[in-house]
Amino acid sequence: MKTKAADVETPIPGSPWINVKDPASPALDAIGDKEGFHPLEIEDCRHRNQIAKISEHEDYFFIVIKTIHFDRAGCAIAFDDFDLFVKPPAVVTVQEKEDSSLVEKAVARMRKEHAQRPWRIVHALIDVAVDDYLPVLDSIGESIDELESDVLERPTPRTLQRALDLKRILIEFRRNATAMREVVNHLLRDAPRDRLVYMRDVYDHLVRVIDFIETYRDLVSGSLDIYLSSIANRTNDIVKVLTIYGTVALPLIVITGFYGMNLELPLQHSPHGLALVVALMAGSTAGIMWYFRRRGWL
Amino acid sequence: MKTKAADVETPIPGSPWINVKDPASPALDAIGDKEGFHPLEIEDCRHRNQIAKISEHEDYFFIVIKTIHFDRAGCAIAFDDFDLFVKPPAVVTVQEKEDSSLVEKAVARMRKEHAQRPWRIVHALIDVAVDDYLPVLDSIGESIDELESDVLERPTPRTLQRALDLKRILIEFRRNATAMREVVNHLLRDAPRDRLVYMRDVYDHLVRVIDFIETYRDLVSGSLDIYLSSIANRTNDIVKVLTIYGTVALPLIVITGFYGMNLELPLQHSPHGLALVVALMAGSTAGIMWYFRRRGWL
Amino acid sequence: MKTKAADVETPIPGSPWINVKDPASPALDAIGDKEGFHPLEIEDCRHRNQIAKISEHEDYFFIVIKTIHFDRAGCAIAFDDFDLFVKPPAVVTVQEKEDSSLVEKAVARMRKEHAQRPWRIVHALIDVAVDDYLPVLDSIGESIDELESDVLERPTPRTLQRALDLKRILIEFRRNATAMREVVNHLLRDAPRDRLVYMRDVYDHLVRVIDFIETYRDLVSGSLDIYLSSIANRTNDIVKVLTIYGTVALPLIVITGFYGMNLELPLQHSPHGLALVVALMAGSTAGIMWYFRRRGWL
Amino acid sequence: MKTKAADVETPIPGSPWINVKDPASPALDAIGDKEGFHPLEIEDCRHRNQIAKISEHEDYFFIVIKTIHFDRAGCAIAFDDFDLFVKPPAVVTVQEKEDSSLVEKAVARMRKEHAQRPWRIVHALIDVAVDDYLPVLDSIGESIDELESDVLERPTPRTLQRALDLKRILIEFRRNATAMREVVNHLLRDAPRDRLVYMRDVYDHLVRVIDFIETYRDLVSGSLDIYLSSIANRTNDIVKVLTIYGTVALPLIVITGFYGMNLELPLQHSPHGLALVVALMAGSTAGIMWYFRRRGWL
Amino acid sequence: MKTKAADVETPIPGSPWINVKDPASPALDAIGDKEGFHPLEIEDCRHRNQIAKISEHEDYFFIVIKTIHFDRAGCAIAFDDFDLFVKPPAVVTVQEKEDSSLVEKAVARMRKEHAQRPWRIVHALIDVAVDDYLPVLDSIGESIDELESDVLERPTPRTLQRALDLKRILIEFRRNATAMREVVNHLLRDAPRDRLVYMRDVYDHLVRVIDFIETYRDLVSGSLDIYLSSIANRTNDIVKVLTIYGTVALPLIVITGFYGMNLELPLQHSPHGLALVVALMAGSTAGIMWYFRRRGWL
Repeated sequence: MKTKAADVETPIPGSPWINVKDPASPALDAIGDKEGFHPLEIEDCRHRNQIAKISEHEDYFFIVIKTIHFDRAGCAIAFDDFDLFVKPPAVVTVQEKEDSSLVEKAVARMRKEHAQRPWRIVHALIDVAVDDYLPVLDSIGESIDELESDVLERPTPRTLQRALDLKRILIEFRRNATAMREVVNHLLRDAPRDRLVYMRDVYDHLVRVIDFIETYRDLVSGSLDIYLSSIANRTNDIVKVLTIYGTVALPLIVITGFYGMNLELPLQHSPHGLALVVALMAGSTAGIMWYFRRRGWL
Repeated sequence: MKTKAADVETPIPGSPWINVKDPASPALDAIGDKEGFHPLEIEDCRHRNQIAKISEHEDYFFIVIKTIHFDRAGCAIAFDDFDLFVKPPAVVTVQEKEDSSLVEKAVARMRKEHAQRPWRIVHALIDVAVDDYLPVLDSIGESIDELESDVLERPTPRTLQRALDLKRILIEFRRNATAMREVVNHLLRDAPRDRLVYMRDVYDHLVRVIDFIETYRDLVSGSLDIYLSSIANRTNDIVKVLTIYGTVALPLIVITGFYGMNLELPLQHSPHGLALVVALMAGSTAGIMWYFRRRGWL
Repeated sequence: MKTKAADVETPIPGSPWINVKDPASPALDAIGDKEGFHPLEIEDCRHRNQIAKISEHEDYFFIVIKTIHFDRAGCAIAFDDFDLFVKPPAVVTVQEKEDSSLVEKAVARMRKEHAQRPWRIVHALIDVAVDDYLPVLDSIGESIDELESDVLERPTPRTLQRALDLKRILIEFRRNATAMREVVNHLLRDAPRDRLVYMRDVYDHLVRVIDFIETYRDLVSGSLDIYLSSIANRTNDIVKVLTIYGTVALPLIVITGFYGMNLELPLQHSPHGLALVVALMAGSTAGIMWYFRRRGWL
Repeated sequence: MKTKAADVETPIPGSPWINVKDPASPALDAIGDKEGFHPLEIEDCRHRNQIAKISEHEDYFFIVIKTIHFDRAGCAIAFDDFDLFVKPPAVVTVQEKEDSSLVEKAVARMRKEHAQRPWRIVHALIDVAVDDYLPVLDSIGESIDELESDVLERPTPRTLQRALDLKRILIEFRRNATAMREVVNHLLRDAPRDRLVYMRDVYDHLVRVIDFIETYRDLVSGSLDIYLSSIANRTNDIVKVLTIYGTVALPLIVITGFYGMNLELPLQHSPHGLALVVALMAGSTAGIMWYFRRRGWL
Repeated sequence: MKTKAADVETPIPGSPWINVKDPASPALDAIGDKEGFHPLEIEDCRHRNQIAKISEHEDYFFIVIKTIHFDRAGCAIAFDDFDLFVKPPAVVTVQEKEDSSLVEKAVARMRKEHAQRPWRIVHALIDVAVDDYLPVLDSIGESIDELESDVLERPTPRTLQRALDLKRILIEFRRNATAMREVVNHLLRDAPRDRLVYMRDVYDHLVRVIDFIETYRDLVSGSLDIYLSSIANRTNDIVKVLTIYGTVALPLIVITGFYGMNLELPLQHSPHGLALVVALMAGSTAGIMWYFRRRGWL
């Protein structure tokens, strides 16, 4: 298998940053061999679903960061891997998804700032990746707002489905954001004085993201409790209606049934018979109504 | 855009404290440039919804603190940012909300004490901000008391809504108070001996605030459990009434229905017919009542 | 306002311990001024609802401890503040509640032991305060036992109220006991060798108290789960009775209703009519009974 | 009160181990005085319900360990205190329960191994005490298995009672095992090299015990959730039966009631009347059945 | 009992690795005696259900690792022990299950790499054991997906059984994976520089495994909440149908019962009688329908 020209690019002409666009490319092995990167780590670049991590070697760092993709309509979240080998002055990055805009955005950001030292490149890439987390967080926040009002006003099994989806998304998000925070925390310890403030900024963002995720998890869990309470409340209301109707109607049915019997009944032929029956029926209804009112059910 | 005179003020004449009243003012940039504050931090002053934080630089501190606003009727809480750059002897503050009374209250407090050194100003501002947390806490406490009695005595969907609102408020409050505590904790480590006791006082207040928030969260969660139990209890009561009425009435309806049939029935023409029917009805009712009493349902 | 003689006392004649019985007394300010106690701390002595705490100053300690008051009938708990300034050889205490028996009990304990050095006085006061926690704990334990048997045998809304009260009490108790433990822990670090064993004893007591509170909180939470299960179980039982009655009776009502119609009915005038109807009714009932028995509902 | 010969024994003739069989015996005070043990600790030996603990003094250790007693039938657990004073070469033990088999078992174990140095005695006693924890754990595990199958197959209020009992037992067990682990952990730090492996073995056992207790607590809590779900499921089934019967029967009752009225009814005297009524009844029943089948309730 | 030739093997000819295939074999005691392994540890090799652990001795390590076995159909998980004594250059392993493929797989892996130093053998064995965890994790993930869709679409008691089984499996899995992580963590601290990256790889795998187990536990717990909500929802739907039918039918039954009485009734002989009754019945039905529609129950 030959290396195609398109597999490897130099995003910023003149800088020591090499980006491998296809992790399957043999060019990656060639670079790894030349720079002395560990074969297990080259292998890692070809497996998706890594967790964000950082390994410090004698003369280089291997960093895996995660980019976010959120599909709000389908209520699904995905994270892609983006790998960095940092061996100053060289920076080798491997993008695992072909159409990632991460490199492009990082280049744009750095052009503005005329700063292209190796750690600045690393920072720019992580910063861009983490910046994409924030709008996803907002979007999840809005979904939770909708969930909460649904749960109180019109709880249906679809609401449950939505709550479950949000819960999964938040669990997945937290897992990735926490690992990213550990990576940035590790980098903070190694950051030179002048870059410290940038890294700290990314770190602050990640702390805020995780903070919000925890808050959102609390809210989704709370929504399920409220869903259950809400349904219990409705069942209670419905049963109350049935009980009131039932308890009012049943004595009337017994009374009319009594006078419907084909037996010789008291007062059957007297004009007072009907009056008696009607009085009994009214009295029974009034008594039951009074009882319910006293218990606060009406 | 020109700097208006009103954008910047010197709250205490003769002191090195400068307060920027409008974060959008170009005066802020001018001060930042002159003092050498980091552009990212000047930018931070223009974004709301920061989390309270402190960054230590070689020759200055950047501090974001949060002021509280509580609307009890609407059951809503809000936090505004107030930013401080401390580069002794200079103190530059940026108030993000135009009508904040924070500066005014801090000035009043310091006049009384004739102490205007830079860290004293910082302390006074944080102290005033945190002092405002306590009445909000009391107000939330009262709302929880109301919630608890509602939950036991008259649980309705509105009660659920209130519990949900309180939960959100407490989550938001805790997030901000915890960040504030971290800021004060950081300042405590740097506090000179003579100011230590003041900072410790603020720290104690914040610890107490967070402590109460945790307690309140426990109570609101507990209220939801009790709400559910309370509703379950009521449904139980209601169903019990329906069951008792139903089980008493159904046999009577069957008996009267039996004698209502247009068939040749036993004892139909005997005067004992009615007696038999009435005896059956009374017996059935008595038997069912006895059964319910034995099960403790009456 | 003049200092009344009764405001200040020397609980142990000849010892350097001064007890201020009324925190509002100007005598307290006079002592504070003379000994150089911080004005904020003198102020603290006049505010109730402090949390237990210890502040170490260059030449003295300020300690706030909490005494317990439990009203089992009303299911309410209260904690009062008792403040200590320790500046060996002087010990100044401030009792915030006028009728506190704490001083009296501590004096009695120390008389027995003929030991009145400053830290011994501190230890005696803390020890007496903590000793009062244990019977309250026992009392709460008994209330929980009652709660648990009620929850299984006769769950009512009053049971819920009790559970809620116990939960509040335990939350309050834990908050105070934890703060007390921190105070004692701080003192342990400063305790001279010969007093270490006494302080450790108080520390052990507090650890045990907190341990029990946690256990009790678990039990009360568990009780609420069981309450809910218990109610669900009862509702199930009640609904089962209604269902069995209803499903047995409804076909009978339909059959008797059918023969009660004023139409020309089959076998209406035959003597077999009644036999047929009775057979149908018996068959329907038997069939339903068999079905229920097979499902294990009878 | 005189010391009876039976109060004190030397479990291994020739060894420096003294066992006090009755903590109330004045012999204990005599030993304490002679060896210089702290009076508070002698006092501790006479109070039950201590928590396992270790105190290190200048020339001796005071250790409280807990022996287990489990009554599976009654679903009750109890822990007794066993106290050790270790002042090499002397070991003084106090058994708080008269019929404890702990000493006997420890002697048996040590005879086999011909090793009776002071710390070996301590190890043997702790080891025997902890060994007794494991069969109790197995027994609890079996009770939980029974609970789980009951909860799914035949949930009754007795199942709840059992779950509650198991929960209490596990809370109590964990409290004691955790304290024991702390004691052994403390001893591990002081263990001479050659005994380290024995102590580590006990420590491993305790870690495993606590690990299992946590697992069991999770399972019991899970059982309660499943109990509630199981009951909810049954209620659902029962209500479904009632609803199907009710909705099928009610229209039939209305129809037969209509033709049971003593009014001039349509088709009353036509032979098609009955056919119409029967057709209506069959149609209503078929329609309702079809509706239920479509909703998946049949 | 004689040592059979088959009890002991040398998996890689020429290497110092000895594998004991039957822990009951006296060959194990012989090796233990010769190498000076602790008798308690030789004993451990003969007891199943150890927890993974590592003990460091002066001249050797004793390591217990766990291999996984998953039966998806029966929803059961099992872990077997595999013991290693590492006393470089010797490595003695004891496989507790006769048909374990662990040795075979580790040999295959090492042949490929031509590396057979003692710690490489240890690493290969642990690596192979942990690699087997990942497909089990995937399988559990699929079971949880099925559970979640069942819980929403067709909740039955079997769904509960499955949730309970998954919960047990995850608890068991976590317990073992956590202990394995501790073992690898301990080894990491002792790993020579060149092996560090391999051990770190195993460690990363275990961290990811535990991370997923936690996530899965959250999802299974969430499923139970949703199960309960789902059942509550269905009961609500069913009760609603019964209530609507009941409240519509009961007034009709009362009305027809009224005109079924054998009394002199108003309009009984008028042709308007029937019209009145039908109007009453239609009005009652319409009124109730309107009320339900207004409450959103239809």
